[in-house]
Amino acid sequence: MNFAREMGSLNSELRVRDIGEQQLLERLHRYCPAQIIGDDAAVLPTHPDRLLVVTTDMLVDGVHFSVGSATPKIYTTSPTDVGWRAAAANLSDLAAMGATPLGITVALGLPPATPVRWIEELYEGMTDCLNRYQTPILGGDLCRSPVLTVSITALGEVLPERQILRSLAQVGDVIVVTGVHGASRAGLELLLNPAWGKDLSPEAHNELKRSHQRPIPRLDVPPLIWRIDPSARVAGMDSSDGLADAVLQICRASGVGARLRHDRLPIPPVLEQTQFLSETELLNWALYGGEDFELVLCLPSAIAEALVAQVGGGAAIVGQIISERSVFLEDTQGQRIDPPLSLDRGFQHFG
Amino acid sequence: MNFAREMGSLNSELRVRDIGEQQLLERLHRYCPAQIIGDDAAVLPTHPDRLLVVTTDMLVDGVHFSVGSATPKIYTTSPTDVGWRAAAANLSDLAAMGATPLGITVALGLPPATPVRWIEELYEGMTDCLNRYQTPILGGDLCRSPVLTVSITALGEVLPERQILRSLAQVGDVIVVTGVHGASRAGLELLLNPAWGKDLSPEAHNELKRSHQRPIPRLDVPPLIWRIDPSARVAGMDSSDGLADAVLQICRASGVGARLRHDRLPIPPVLEQTQFLSETELLNWALYGGEDFELVLCLPSAIAEALVAQVGGGAAIVGQIISERSVFLEDTQGQRIDPPLSLDRGFQHFG
Repeated sequence: MNFAREMGSLNSELRVRDIGEQQLLERLHRYCPAQIIGDDAAVLPTHPDRLLVVTTDMLVDGVHFSVGSATPKIYTTSPTDVGWRAAAANLSDLAAMGATPLGITVALGLPPATPVRWIEELYEGMTDCLNRYQTPILGGDLCRSPVLTVSITALGEVLPERQILRSLAQVGDVIVVTGVHGASRAGLELLLNPAWGKDLSPEAHNELKRSHQRPIPRLDVPPLIWRIDPSARVAGMDSSDGLADAVLQICRASGVGARLRHDRLPIPPVLEQTQFLSETELLNWALYGGEDFELVLCLPSAIAEALVAQVGGGAAIVGQIISERSVFLEDTQGQRIDPPLSLDRGFQHFG
Repeated sequence: MNFAREMGSLNSELRVRDIGEQQLLERLHRYCPAQIIGDDAAVLPTHPDRLLVVTTDMLVDGVHFSVGSATPKIYTTSPTDVGWRAAAANLSDLAAMGATPLGITVALGLPPATPVRWIEELYEGMTDCLNRYQTPILGGDLCRSPVLTVSITALGEVLPERQILRSLAQVGDVIVVTGVHGASRAGLELLLNPAWGKDLSPEAHNELKRSHQRPIPRLDVPPLIWRIDPSARVAGMDSSDGLADAVLQICRASGVGARLRHDRLPIPPVLEQTQFLSETELLNWALYGGEDFELVLCLPSAIAEALVAQVGGGAAIVGQIISERSVFLEDTQGQRIDPPLSLDRGFQHFG
């Protein structure tokens, strides 16, 4: 317990911005039991044959959305979309653990001038998403705050033998992604910069914007896996922080590496038609864009092939787990493309 | 679903400050299943013979505590005390449901200039409190925010027949409080205004400040009740928003009223010795001061008497549940003192 105090006096001016999110998380992990953290959600054995799964997320006005008066760089998100996205992000974390949702709690920090309509539309957006999965809002807390803040905790449950964990990947597994990547990033670009992508159809614009505003948590995927093989071992996480981030995190947790076939990365078909995006930019959006909320799964190839066929859409086998602890792209001839992928290029919350 | 939109357009300028917390909660309740909200925590049947209990709380810099640079009206709370209080408040909500804690999640909204030491001491304070009850931190979320925000969700479990609910009070029950009331309010006064209470001893000052900074959640009380009578019916909640608020909320939820004996309200003995407090002020602090985090319980008198003897300290039988739907004080002769108690005098979050 004195460790933190000592560190405090040695580094009395150390600030959050000096160390970033990963290092801060590592420092705080010493306060949490090692066996229940480090995945998309915490897992708690409360029942002889089921595990409770818990995940939490905080969204802040001007950082994750905008009520309306924030900096011009941030587009104004509708409150229903903020609500949908908040619910979807938490359900996606449950899906990434293989869990089925039980409910969410919602704590709101509210400036006194917040329009009541804004809050009610936030709840409408959340319940629009939650109702698809028969997931109730279990109540919450309201408090005064100078900045509108939404904090959601989602609860789910999973059978112990059906947990999807980052640490379960094995050499030889193939890597499945359950849908296209880069669509959410393109939708954000259209919302920030309406002059972008003028060579795309209005339908394409709407589809891309919808990918960003109304992401679909892949709660449908784990049951498909168990139907193919009730005792499958599955490693995975969601791609909320990007496809590259997901593969890198899984590899780090499992002590393995991965090679990804450049030509197999599922790009949204509409994005191949625009002159507004170079091939390199398209690749960056697919790998690092984030917020597509698909699942990235590692499993034996026979199960993977059956799964991809059933999921359809943009689902694809994109690579393989290898023993060399590096994550890199390869070309159609299997030639390695340097440099390897890196977490530094992903989203940094305090960057 | 269109109801909120219509209300929005009819009252397009309605703001949170115009309607206050109670009305806003009532509007939001329509998004939550009626059977699982309205108590100190939500209850979820996930297990054939146990219920999952969930409660959530948000604390905001400058509103609930101060990192150091806020308005001069707000005293600077140490981060360890902020952490202890946040953990204790959530555990108190679990105790108020009769539940035993399973764990908490912590979401932090952090300005980039937040000292890392502040965050680590926050976690030390939380774990100091949680470790007393073998309750782990199950992880959480970190994000950037212009204002330091701490959002905690606590999980617990309870046997279905041992839920303590606000709605279970019956005419004839006696009302038990598990400890003194007004000590936390007096401690806050000393922290805000060190010139106050100069006729009290340094020990009394420390005791009162500690009541405010390090409240003890009454997780010890429910097991004592079940030892006295394993099938007792118990109504109750915690007194975090004040003793009067707790009695009024229980009476509203149970469709009953209450009479409280003025002379039985457990006042901290040290407060009877100061000239800085009139009898009326002392009564107001005991009834409306809040944050004492004791339990207010309604149960048959035989169980209540055994419980008060076992809890000791300031525990007392303070009144009785009546059929008349009013909550009032009475004097030692049983004469009613007007006016009746009212929620309007309690803490209003957006007031």
